[in-house]
Amino acid sequence: MSPISIDAVRARAEADARTYGYYLTPDPELLQAFLEGLKVNEERYGYPSCPCRLASGRFDFDRDIICPCDYRDPDVQEYGACYCRLYVTKEVYKSKELPTVPERRPMEKQALSYGTAAQAEKKPEEAAPAAMPKEEAKVVLPKLKPKLWYCKQCGYVIFRDEPPYVCPICKAKRELFAEIKTRIDFLG
Amino acid sequence: MSPISIDAVRARAEADARTYGYYLTPDPELLQAFLEGLKVNEERYGYPSCPCRLASGRFDFDRDIICPCDYRDPDVQEYGACYCRLYVTKEVYKSKELPTVPERRPMEKQALSYGTAAQAEKKPEEAAPAAMPKEEAKVVLPKLKPKLWYCKQCGYVIFRDEPPYVCPICKAKRELFAEIKTRIDFLG
Amino acid sequence: MSPISIDAVRARAEADARTYGYYLTPDPELLQAFLEGLKVNEERYGYPSCPCRLASGRFDFDRDIICPCDYRDPDVQEYGACYCRLYVTKEVYKSKELPTVPERRPMEKQALSYGTAAQAEKKPEEAAPAAMPKEEAKVVLPKLKPKLWYCKQCGYVIFRDEPPYVCPICKAKRELFAEIKTRIDFLG
Repeated sequence: MSPISIDAVRARAEADARTYGYYLTPDPELLQAFLEGLKVNEERYGYPSCPCRLASGRFDFDRDIICPCDYRDPDVQEYGACYCRLYVTKEVYKSKELPTVPERRPMEKQALSYGTAAQAEKKPEEAAPAAMPKEEAKVVLPKLKPKLWYCKQCGYVIFRDEPPYVCPICKAKRELFAEIKTRIDFLG
Repeated sequence: MSPISIDAVRARAEADARTYGYYLTPDPELLQAFLEGLKVNEERYGYPSCPCRLASGRFDFDRDIICPCDYRDPDVQEYGACYCRLYVTKEVYKSKELPTVPERRPMEKQALSYGTAAQAEKKPEEAAPAAMPKEEAKVVLPKLKPKLWYCKQCGYVIFRDEPPYVCPICKAKRELFAEIKTRIDFLG
Repeated sequence: MSPISIDAVRARAEADARTYGYYLTPDPELLQAFLEGLKVNEERYGYPSCPCRLASGRFDFDRDIICPCDYRDPDVQEYGACYCRLYVTKEVYKSKELPTVPERRPMEKQALSYGTAAQAEKKPEEAAPAAMPKEEAKVVLPKLKPKLWYCKQCGYVIFRDEPPYVCPICKAKRELFAEIKTRIDFLG
């Protein structure tokens, strides 16, 4: 991966904040650290995964924690900030009081990430010693198959393994998403 | 339907206003009344239909008046506020002068809603008395079949019975939406 | 095409600016000139193509320069303003210093537009004189076939000839878009 400038990382985060009416964290040191973390992850993995979370290194599995992560919008809606406090509301920005935001990412996903990362750090001979069958040593990430979903409220269409927590267009909840199934009728 | 907190209703409306650069009504009493109305409707029907309009109680038929309704974006664009004056522009918010916004919902849809609601309020024996054939007493809502539409200007894809009045991504008018038709070619 | 009011053109541009957190140019004379230009183009072509660029008059080929053009979002992200300086960031709006923004539209598209426009201005007999075979005199615009694309980061779905430069939902780059291919399996 070619090096990415901090300015480009910042410009993207600012564009994203503008679109959703969010602000970037009011703490300049924290902001700098986040942008550096996003830059490092993008150079390492090829995508800017969240600097506050452990990535597995496999794109489709880390997709939910690529910044802006899947959890940002419900978090800002409920707590006024995302888990990292990179994106905050105007009120939080002005108060300079960063709230504590609990982790919304499901435990199963976190656990699998830890397993994969631990494995990747082992040396090859440690990862699969002769005495241990390969299957036991390996953390297997589930296959994620994208599907076509739509928001029953506004009609927004999305192609992912799971529907979003909040519709980016009308703010409907995940429960209002349904799968679009293609039906082919044969006549005669 | 489990009870919904006023705070959750307010957080969703605020998130929606932020995304589109709107403001919530500057009148605090009106705001409170609207949020209560949305909460009541969500608990009654399972979706937050507009408190200023009569819902039929059938999701697909009321879809266009679930808040934020289909008419909000063209209304704010033309009048600076939606029909309810829940969502307003910054200018209207600062002036505190709420404009009068005419109803954009088509008359046929309104009439059917009134018919269905009137029918639902009748007691069972009144609704279909022995002397009157059931068919005559019944207001039949049309079947709404969702289709895949796209905005010819920006490419935005939506799955609904009708295209939106305004494209949420590029603001193109309804006339710029066309249906995506799937074509299957058989070779040999 | 029926005449369009300047107020409607302005209302659409303002709505678009609000959604993305942009501002319209701080120069009132420039703003008026742009809105007039958009109005003229919409009346002439049926769509508001960019007043700073030459349109071919063929919708699918001019699609990328219909305002808001395909280049606006990456331009504002990188330079704080679009090519025309109609849409600017808050910082640029407040500074009143309009940056110079280079043309991002690919040269091939520009060249074809110039060819087609030059041809359209010729009188019919000039355009295809008896002595010259019709094929040579004609600038042939390529056929643009829309496809279904999705953003691998957030799942956003779009139906266009090419993916956007920036995902309007999550700000991922063009490289993160992939085509959705429909697969039909026959059993038995």
